[in-house]
Amino acid sequence: MQTGLYIVDQSGASFATVFRPDRILADVRSEFQRITVFESAELGRGLMLDSIFNVSTVMEAFYHEPMAHIPLAVAGSKESVLIIGGGDFGVVHHLLKHGDLQSVTICELDGKVLDVAREFFPQWAVSEADPRLSVRVGDGAAWLSATAPQSLDAVIIDSTDPFEKADMLVSEPFYRSAAAALKPGGALIQIVADAVLYRDVWRYVVPRVRCCFSSIRPLFVPIPFYATGAWGLIVAVKGRGTVAFEKVTREYLDSIGGVRTLTPELVRGWASLPPFLADAMGDLFA
Amino acid sequence: MQTGLYIVDQSGASFATVFRPDRILADVRSEFQRITVFESAELGRGLMLDSIFNVSTVMEAFYHEPMAHIPLAVAGSKESVLIIGGGDFGVVHHLLKHGDLQSVTICELDGKVLDVAREFFPQWAVSEADPRLSVRVGDGAAWLSATAPQSLDAVIIDSTDPFEKADMLVSEPFYRSAAAALKPGGALIQIVADAVLYRDVWRYVVPRVRCCFSSIRPLFVPIPFYATGAWGLIVAVKGRGTVAFEKVTREYLDSIGGVRTLTPELVRGWASLPPFLADAMGDLFA
Repeated sequence: MQTGLYIVDQSGASFATVFRPDRILADVRSEFQRITVFESAELGRGLMLDSIFNVSTVMEAFYHEPMAHIPLAVAGSKESVLIIGGGDFGVVHHLLKHGDLQSVTICELDGKVLDVAREFFPQWAVSEADPRLSVRVGDGAAWLSATAPQSLDAVIIDSTDPFEKADMLVSEPFYRSAAAALKPGGALIQIVADAVLYRDVWRYVVPRVRCCFSSIRPLFVPIPFYATGAWGLIVAVKGRGTVAFEKVTREYLDSIGGVRTLTPELVRGWASLPPFLADAMGDLFA
Repeated sequence: MQTGLYIVDQSGASFATVFRPDRILADVRSEFQRITVFESAELGRGLMLDSIFNVSTVMEAFYHEPMAHIPLAVAGSKESVLIIGGGDFGVVHHLLKHGDLQSVTICELDGKVLDVAREFFPQWAVSEADPRLSVRVGDGAAWLSATAPQSLDAVIIDSTDPFEKADMLVSEPFYRSAAAALKPGGALIQIVADAVLYRDVWRYVVPRVRCCFSSIRPLFVPIPFYATGAWGLIVAVKGRGTVAFEKVTREYLDSIGGVRTLTPELVRGWASLPPFLADAMGDLFA
């Protein structure tokens, strides 16, 4: 083994991703977690929360663009958005490209994440200069339950893994609050889990979402360094009908400008259930 | 760090995937490489070549199904196929599901890989009982150059990484042999490299393929544990026109039977170039 500094992200029971950064830029403990920022020539700047890989500048768009642009495509309108978590400003800096967006709130539990992002990810944190953005520090579930009914077009849940520290964000009361706060036709998107290894998470989450949303569809988006990379998101829309991923058209993506990782064909592919997933999870989405 | 046996697969300059299997079933050195078979409850049986992850039984279809079923879809006919490498019998056991396939040859450089597969991956090696399969031990490039002209419908190059031990398989003489051995309309598929990190490999390989194939398209297929997972294959067809990925229809996949990881929508998505790849590599495929 080579001498050096390693960060071990044990994302599976029998495997881990090990990072060997050139430099640690920050390593601080907040009330909630350990926050580490690293740098490598290959991956750019990386953010680890409790030594779990969250994002790196080289590959951030693989995760942030679906989280920002897909809910806004499927929602009825695009005026008002809430992001729960997202304190690295990664999702919001993509969201603010939407000219028709009027207001977005980040509700981040850990104020230290915001501070670290302001210092080490200024290209994302510059979003704070946009008057459409409000930033709150606090419990996203509580904030959502106090949000005016039918006031949001989209709720984006950009949290750490469910069942680690965010189990409240996969509860029926939480989804009930989300459904109440959304306008009819409004959309919710949430990161769920690896589709190969963590299907029990899907079986836990989906029925709870269904309490309050009749239209739910999964999106199996490859996200580098998230366990096997065969990761999954869930998208739900308030009201009847199906989640219309076909609204992610070439015209829609071109109108945003600067989109790096999405094509209409890719999104349709991610929304299709291959047999191995249909067998394992098809009943959840029937 | 937990006490245990680890296998470190350093697939990036600043990161590695580390496996901690329950058991090592085999660890042998051949003339060419170290061959290790492991087992874990989570990943099933895994094959490592020189400690680089090749495949595990739980996730084999993510790699083997595109390699087997996509060239047969885009080729004019499906009668005769050559696999270079592929000594684990993983691709061929999918290929033999095609009722219209009449003959397939595996040309594997390392006879020890075949022996290990026969012992530890019998569910794939059982393919040897199929009279349509011939297995050769030897140099795939030499075998191909001695193949009768216009005799093959598809050449599947299932080798270790180019530039490690297989640089002959990304040379102009090799592609010239492949083009000569293929029937008009015949297809070649080859694993290339990670699309995020190893674009220099793409810039090396694609112009060489172009020496002898005017129709080339990339497919960006997520393959777990292959570097960032944003992996890429190349598909080329002998003759004019474009590589017709739209031939991977629902009817085609249903006719094979038992396909686990492919949908027509996924294949179309993998074939679409998102802007980050179009900017980096679009000129290669213009």
